[in-house]
Amino acid sequence: MKALRYEDQKLSVADVSQPQANGEALVRVTLSGICNTDLEIARGYAGFQGTLGHEFVGVVEALPKSVFTRVLPGQRVVGEINAGCGSCDLCRAGDPRHCPRRTVLGIVARDGAHAEFLKLPVANLLPVPDEISDECAVFTEPLAAAYGILERTAITEDTRVAVIGDGKLGLLCAQVLATTGAPVVLVGKHPPKLQIAERRGIEAITIDKAHSRAREFDVVVEASGSPTGFNLALDLVHPRGVLVLKSTFHGATEMDAARIVVDEISVVGSRCGRFAPALELLRTNAVDVESLISEEFALTDGVRAMQRVAQVDVLKVLLRP
Amino acid sequence: MKALRYEDQKLSVADVSQPQANGEALVRVTLSGICNTDLEIARGYAGFQGTLGHEFVGVVEALPKSVFTRVLPGQRVVGEINAGCGSCDLCRAGDPRHCPRRTVLGIVARDGAHAEFLKLPVANLLPVPDEISDECAVFTEPLAAAYGILERTAITEDTRVAVIGDGKLGLLCAQVLATTGAPVVLVGKHPPKLQIAERRGIEAITIDKAHSRAREFDVVVEASGSPTGFNLALDLVHPRGVLVLKSTFHGATEMDAARIVVDEISVVGSRCGRFAPALELLRTNAVDVESLISEEFALTDGVRAMQRVAQVDVLKVLLRP
Repeated sequence: MKALRYEDQKLSVADVSQPQANGEALVRVTLSGICNTDLEIARGYAGFQGTLGHEFVGVVEALPKSVFTRVLPGQRVVGEINAGCGSCDLCRAGDPRHCPRRTVLGIVARDGAHAEFLKLPVANLLPVPDEISDECAVFTEPLAAAYGILERTAITEDTRVAVIGDGKLGLLCAQVLATTGAPVVLVGKHPPKLQIAERRGIEAITIDKAHSRAREFDVVVEASGSPTGFNLALDLVHPRGVLVLKSTFHGATEMDAARIVVDEISVVGSRCGRFAPALELLRTNAVDVESLISEEFALTDGVRAMQRVAQVDVLKVLLRP
Repeated sequence: MKALRYEDQKLSVADVSQPQANGEALVRVTLSGICNTDLEIARGYAGFQGTLGHEFVGVVEALPKSVFTRVLPGQRVVGEINAGCGSCDLCRAGDPRHCPRRTVLGIVARDGAHAEFLKLPVANLLPVPDEISDECAVFTEPLAAAYGILERTAITEDTRVAVIGDGKLGLLCAQVLATTGAPVVLVGKHPPKLQIAERRGIEAITIDKAHSRAREFDVVVEASGSPTGFNLALDLVHPRGVLVLKSTFHGATEMDAARIVVDEISVVGSRCGRFAPALELLRTNAVDVESLISEEFALTDGVRAMQRVAQVDVLKVLLRP
């Protein structure tokens, strides 16, 4: 089968064997989404080698024998990306996201979703409700990641929230957090991207305007992935506020630790969320993900698609096997 | 009167006018303690100019007329160091610690305690119970700062806590947090300092031993003030754990932001605490502060005392006017 691979510091679409399910589910990928993390990995981040991709929607091709599950062969599915050891305390409590021996689809020791087929533990799969198109379902993973912020800090309709970064992650975070009823302000650089949030009733402002709102926010989400975004976040959050780090920065970031101490700020990391609430947001049209689709490429054109994602005017790029 | 001043990038003991109380209380200082923050300020941190010092015990010399207060002239007192504007929401709620217009004794726009006299708002003063000697009462401020950690993160007898740094701040943090019943491990470099904690029943280990306990702790307090301490703290805290930043680092620190995101760590700044619980710890002998006193100097010898504090074998140095 075809797969978009990163190996020996080189990105290519290669012919590889179909995954051996070995007790897991085999999924035929219908559509996959390129995340900025894929770009980071293709720059050597995290030392991953193999098939890239962790955002997908697909169809169950085969299940291990005698497994009673909530999915059936032929069913449309999405899949949580962390596959735990199954035996540690975290895994037994049903949450493998921090299992120390986990593999992660397309990120840690597990071939990913930019391929014709992938495998995942059956327990990771969730059926996709009929109301959700493939083009929307492929956003389940990043939407779950945005929703994961709510596991890390309380946000109510009284919480003043700013999201920094008008890329696809920032646009998803702003929309998800706005569903709580909180007044959310999106801060970005690109008017066409800011307009996507505005169309959902979210206040969207440029960075120069943001500077006049220093110390106004209870929670600031850094979703730009840049050190300047982190420093702007420190400017916007008020003393004893929460700064959520959402994007995996590449390399070391300079941090003004004295400021975190003096203003008693909490810097809270947030990575993966659960899929069920994300599917519910999609099913009820509570968020607009279709406006985030910039382009679709054939999987065979995956290398060019990755180059396209790196360009400034682009949001989500999809790959179709 | 004599005062230890930092002005025009120079440290000296100078003759200055006694403070004009102007509606505040005038306090005759009995004893003051030198904090590492004093050293940072004398290196230019925070841009402060004036009389240094924020740890003291003294006697009320004069009160403004017609003020009903919990302190009387002649009474032994300690004093909270943040003086708010009195009119913002924070001040009206009785907590000026984050008032945006606050002054801070010996740190922000207010002459400090390494002097014969100081002034503070009457509301900042607390009487010192008779059971507490001056030599112990002078530790109220740093002890309150250590106690302030409990305002920023929950610690119970089930919380596995590590404190990094066996300086005076780390020794106070370890002792205060141990009063919750939590198993506390102090990590340091200096056996004589580690022994102070051990004598209080706290497990104390050297840094090389700490490396074998990676990801073991729910809460790690960084009290060493060094970037290597911060990185060790990241090693010791488990996923979704809390890293408390207690010391004001000088300048920018390199931070592995990706790690904070991937392991979903909370980095929580902590600065000043309230004095009442600290006085109660001293009154009940719940902590040993006397072992932390390295030396006492006359205030007139303040410059030499500051040089002494910078030496590695020294803990608390006191100044007597």
